[in-house]
Amino acid sequence: MELEFLRWLRERIPSSPQVALGIGDDAALLNQTAGKQTVVTTDMLMDGVDFRLAECGARAAGRKALAVNLSDLAAMGARPVAAFVSLALPRSDEGDLAKQLLEGLLPLATEYECAIAGGDTNTWDGPLAISITAIGEANTGRSWLRSGAQPGDAILATGAFGGSIRGRHLTFTPRVRDALLLQELGANVHAAIDVSDGLSLDLSRICDASSCGALINLMKVPIHSDATALANPLDRALGDGEDFELILAVPALTAEQLLATQPLGIPLTQIGWFEAELGMRQQLASGEIEPLSPRGYEH
Amino acid sequence: MELEFLRWLRERIPSSPQVALGIGDDAALLNQTAGKQTVVTTDMLMDGVDFRLAECGARAAGRKALAVNLSDLAAMGARPVAAFVSLALPRSDEGDLAKQLLEGLLPLATEYECAIAGGDTNTWDGPLAISITAIGEANTGRSWLRSGAQPGDAILATGAFGGSIRGRHLTFTPRVRDALLLQELGANVHAAIDVSDGLSLDLSRICDASSCGALINLMKVPIHSDATALANPLDRALGDGEDFELILAVPALTAEQLLATQPLGIPLTQIGWFEAELGMRQQLASGEIEPLSPRGYEH
Repeated sequence: MELEFLRWLRERIPSSPQVALGIGDDAALLNQTAGKQTVVTTDMLMDGVDFRLAECGARAAGRKALAVNLSDLAAMGARPVAAFVSLALPRSDEGDLAKQLLEGLLPLATEYECAIAGGDTNTWDGPLAISITAIGEANTGRSWLRSGAQPGDAILATGAFGGSIRGRHLTFTPRVRDALLLQELGANVHAAIDVSDGLSLDLSRICDASSCGALINLMKVPIHSDATALANPLDRALGDGEDFELILAVPALTAEQLLATQPLGIPLTQIGWFEAELGMRQQLASGEIEPLSPRGYEH
Repeated sequence: MELEFLRWLRERIPSSPQVALGIGDDAALLNQTAGKQTVVTTDMLMDGVDFRLAECGARAAGRKALAVNLSDLAAMGARPVAAFVSLALPRSDEGDLAKQLLEGLLPLATEYECAIAGGDTNTWDGPLAISITAIGEANTGRSWLRSGAQPGDAILATGAFGGSIRGRHLTFTPRVRDALLLQELGANVHAAIDVSDGLSLDLSRICDASSCGALINLMKVPIHSDATALANPLDRALGDGEDFELILAVPALTAEQLLATQPLGIPLTQIGWFEAELGMRQQLASGEIEPLSPRGYEH
């Protein structure tokens, strides 16, 4: 990275106790602790695919690029430690663009105590691409995998779903605090995923990884006001994606407790049950149960 | 990633004892050990900047993208653990392209026991971009920083320099084995960097980080045969870059030993000394000493 830009950035980066060496060398150094695991996720966001730079501006694009990575850490129940930000900048105002991208993501990094510990800034004739790798930490064996759901577990969801395309896909809050709070409470979370591609599609991914099925009570799906303003709000809640809410598999007793106490700052709703029978099913208002085809964004 | 591609990839990935959870969840899990540090580097390579896809093909591009990251780990004296591979694929034959990119980098991953533990595969209307984050491991405090060079240290270099544009920038061997061998020998390396942007420019970065200067004996600079075939071979050795050789700062006694025993499979050459006086200087064949302007590729 350019020296002046580096200096500007260094003054604005939140510190992280695990980061022994940050930006400026051939690599960063993070301290390891026995009994901990490093949690690593990476997402690449591109102009015209994940955002439209000309419409949303660089700050919003930068914010989203970090937010989706933090959402993945939240889905693992992990605490953010550091992020690495690589940029392919279109050859025009690339300096300003880089600064604005960072200005967009730094408040989020600061809020979740996630250091920016490295990256790679490049210029080319192509459109803007932002690739971020986020590194977190969790106690060994305490991360939430997709594969731990058991028949009889309740399906809990944070927040509400659908219509994120109206703007929320850029401004959403990654559920980092909520995940860490559940970890601190010692909540018995069997499995988790964040909804990037669609509530029903991402739920089916927990089912696939856990070799179980799921029954969604359609009446219980929390529909976001962004979706109620559109046609077929329930369909949108089930398939729109980019809600970045968490779906959790928790045993019935834990679910009861969490639903009664609502310990998070955001609503926690039970939308159904995991079942032994493979496949996804939906319960209609009439009480009738029929198969549900998971839908959403397939990569 | 697409399921079939994921399955294909999983069968070909080298295992790594630290990787507790690899591709397929929201994030990967790596085990931590007391007394170790996680070493993290990231590089983004783009069509038309770091390679020309139409000329070199996807396998060579994929190989280079991993190799430059492994070179950064080598420059830290770190052992590779896992790599995360994110792709922005041009919308046409994207499946084949992804497979070929991976086919290009998997032999290198296998050779250096570096698992592919995650990534993000995307398609767009832009050109190919490959973003890799490589994670390694080193004993706490034993990584080689840029900032540890001391006046009186010898400047050692692996291999030879210049003319990498003739093809070596795609086929070079990252000096992972050599770095690990020096670590195993307990060699007292004060500072290191890999030459990506130019021998003199990268050497000046050690000087800047270490607050010292350097005197290069021009007669001692090992010039690669790729450069001797071109005009001004010495200039090319000093400024071409993408040699991905290591420059090391080591105390005089260590240097003497290493130069006498030549423990690496590749030549180790002393090209000068670090000095207390700031700035870079060059010693000519005549013995005359004059200032040297570092040159190479500035980002």
